[in-house]
Amino acid sequence: MPRYRMVVEYDGTAYVGWQRQENGHSVQSALEGGILSLTGETVTIRGAGRTDSGVHALGQVIHADLSREWKEYKLRNALNAHLALANEQVSVLDVKAVGPEFDARFSALRRHYLYRIINRPARLAIEANRAWWVPKHLDHEAMHAAAQRLIGKHDFSTFRSAHCQANSPVRTLDRLDVTRDGDRIEIRATAQSFLHNQIRSFAGTLKLAGEGKMTPDDVQAALEARDRKYCGPVAPPEGLYFMQVDYDG
Amino acid sequence: MPRYRMVVEYDGTAYVGWQRQENGHSVQSALEGGILSLTGETVTIRGAGRTDSGVHALGQVIHADLSREWKEYKLRNALNAHLALANEQVSVLDVKAVGPEFDARFSALRRHYLYRIINRPARLAIEANRAWWVPKHLDHEAMHAAAQRLIGKHDFSTFRSAHCQANSPVRTLDRLDVTRDGDRIEIRATAQSFLHNQIRSFAGTLKLAGEGKMTPDDVQAALEARDRKYCGPVAPPEGLYFMQVDYDG
Repeated sequence: MPRYRMVVEYDGTAYVGWQRQENGHSVQSALEGGILSLTGETVTIRGAGRTDSGVHALGQVIHADLSREWKEYKLRNALNAHLALANEQVSVLDVKAVGPEFDARFSALRRHYLYRIINRPARLAIEANRAWWVPKHLDHEAMHAAAQRLIGKHDFSTFRSAHCQANSPVRTLDRLDVTRDGDRIEIRATAQSFLHNQIRSFAGTLKLAGEGKMTPDDVQAALEARDRKYCGPVAPPEGLYFMQVDYDG
Repeated sequence: MPRYRMVVEYDGTAYVGWQRQENGHSVQSALEGGILSLTGETVTIRGAGRTDSGVHALGQVIHADLSREWKEYKLRNALNAHLALANEQVSVLDVKAVGPEFDARFSALRRHYLYRIINRPARLAIEANRAWWVPKHLDHEAMHAAAQRLIGKHDFSTFRSAHCQANSPVRTLDRLDVTRDGDRIEIRATAQSFLHNQIRSFAGTLKLAGEGKMTPDDVQAALEARDRKYCGPVAPPEGLYFMQVDYDG
């Protein structure tokens, strides 16, 4: 069966999350429903990363096996037409035919996420559900300094959801940069893979660093404690964007 | 009565437009409702510009007369708290006490608008209702060249809604720039004031220029015809943002 890799964008606000579930509509089921409606085939797709309810994606990657060959742009356009008919907040940005060895999840070399904070006194209107609103001023340089203590290979138990299903809490964090442009603060995180809630746990902890409530040493001590109780409050899902996945070649 | 100038942001998707109307909820009534809920006063506010249903603002400016004096930041925060309670997609970004001579509409020297196009094959997900999706490739340089023919003082009857209530179709257009960043095309327009639907009429006509269906000479001829039938299809409201108003001092 020909295999297709697709890059997918979605507004996660109205979905129960990436993964198909009994109790609500997920992004995965939106896409599988689009494929069913287009081709009549019931397929199970696999995504490079699971995102929680409210989390967005600009570059989720999936693969799907279809029974017949499609021109790539025709599959993209036809699938988008069916997603539009179903009023899904999901769009297929790109389709590529790939070999059977490609797996969206297991072939992924690096995953890139963005966490957006809007740091201003006034509530959000146009960006509601698209960023974390933090009214109190944050020192983004203090956040960045604290973030650098988290880079590298560590046991990230402190920054891991109690529901995380990964076998090991050890991950290698390649990048955790905090920058500011006006009232926009961006946290950019890269790793081969992340634990459940890891980036939202980072964001919530770095917010405390930005408020002056945690020093870089405190953040490092929290990491080294390997204990969830040292984590700051987990940041809300609406600030998180799954941006890009890197593969070989 | 003390007068306050406020800078207001809103997501226009769910509103019938800026202006209070009998048949639906407007941004003006959302703000007047917030002031009533906060102060118990029924006030009529005035905005620098009327926006249609679906049109957004990052910098609409209004003035309101209240019966007592407020600290500026307290009025901003309290009004935002009431807008949040009412679940309005409106936010007050800034409040300044001003003299009785200030009028949000009549004191305005220049108004700045942005029209956003996302020019890519795939439908919009995260930016749905926040930009005009144009799947066919547009030549933004051709659009910019055509736009320059519209700069200056002209009778803009071609680019004016049949419902426009202005006394004169003559306006002076200071700026109409078209730029591209990846798949994002931005049209930035500045004038002291605009006719009803003028910028959306420009955007729809410039799209034809970007498709190669109108040359700059055609656009100039359309302007000089002073006849609505030479206007391209009016661009949809969701791409338009009221960005900023300039005042003296």
